[in-house]
Amino acid sequence: MSAPEPALRRSRMTPERIGELYDAVLELLAEVGYEALTIDAVAARARTSKMTLYRQWSGKPELVASALRHIGPVPGAEFDTGSLRGDLIALAARGAGDQRDEAVFRGMNEAASREPLLHQVLRELIFEPTVHAFRAATDRAIDRGELAPDNPAIDFTTHMVVGAVIAYATIENHQPDRAFIERYIDGAVLPALGVH
Amino acid sequence: MSAPEPALRRSRMTPERIGELYDAVLELLAEVGYEALTIDAVAARARTSKMTLYRQWSGKPELVASALRHIGPVPGAEFDTGSLRGDLIALAARGAGDQRDEAVFRGMNEAASREPLLHQVLRELIFEPTVHAFRAATDRAIDRGELAPDNPAIDFTTHMVVGAVIAYATIENHQPDRAFIERYIDGAVLPALGVH
Repeated sequence: MSAPEPALRRSRMTPERIGELYDAVLELLAEVGYEALTIDAVAARARTSKMTLYRQWSGKPELVASALRHIGPVPGAEFDTGSLRGDLIALAARGAGDQRDEAVFRGMNEAASREPLLHQVLRELIFEPTVHAFRAATDRAIDRGELAPDNPAIDFTTHMVVGAVIAYATIENHQPDRAFIERYIDGAVLPALGVH
Repeated sequence: MSAPEPALRRSRMTPERIGELYDAVLELLAEVGYEALTIDAVAARARTSKMTLYRQWSGKPELVASALRHIGPVPGAEFDTGSLRGDLIALAARGAGDQRDEAVFRGMNEAASREPLLHQVLRELIFEPTVHAFRAATDRAIDRGELAPDNPAIDFTTHMVVGAVIAYATIENHQPDRAFIERYIDGAVLPALGVH
């Protein structure tokens, strides 16, 4: 077995125990959100002590950051459907992962606007992989000859698609369905990109 | 003088005192966010008692809803610059009002996803006036002959513009500047709307 990760070095917790602890953090995040989450509640849910937690994490932001990193980044490059339309619909229709992950991340942007470590984690896990996935989709469309490489809307593809999904979810208080996403991609995004 | 508003009926607070109380709520919202705001903190900041507050508001959501309604809806119809480009840039560049209001509302979407009363208040104060303002801008553009009335992107103008501003602010952790907004309107939104 290789050397333990730095975060585990001074811990008596097994990787399985750490996984259970992260699950407890993620469950609580989904249930009550970041602001209302307490180290006490994590300790109770994971059947451990605050002292054990503080031995390894200096505070709530650090513990939550570790638990979020345990989920891993959102998927990206595998959205290769063969057409720009298909890729954009697939990218828009995915959430932050499964339903629990969606609830976990729903409140995280607000917390991240106040807590730089959380913003950094969201950047690693969501923003950068998402921007990269959209750029890969438009690059493939350019390679196929679907999309003109100098179209000025290319730089704004992520903003157009992700932004509309966020705006819809904010206004309606639920995620857009696939019919909305298809109408939006066909009616606004592909015309902006000059793809017909 | 006309009959007092229902909310003031059983109160000994003067309108001035109510205004000071709402200011205390809004200051605290801007400082700590909705989740961390407590009735205790409001009482201390406004130099009143919890009992006085609970006599008039049944809880935190109701008190916060009253304070938000005190700000009033975001402005809308006055963004008539004479061109669709000018109107869209003006609508995109405005925040939720002044800087305090921006901080107040920044965390409110997360709270609103959990608390129906707050979602209703955001709908009244922000979402509906915003959708209406964008619709008024595209209607004026149709009347001027700038915009084809059957363009499918018209229905998505709010999603495209507001969504991109939210996506930018989420990723970058600060509001987009006017140069970004102009590049986005010129490079993505007006082409989607078929306006050149």
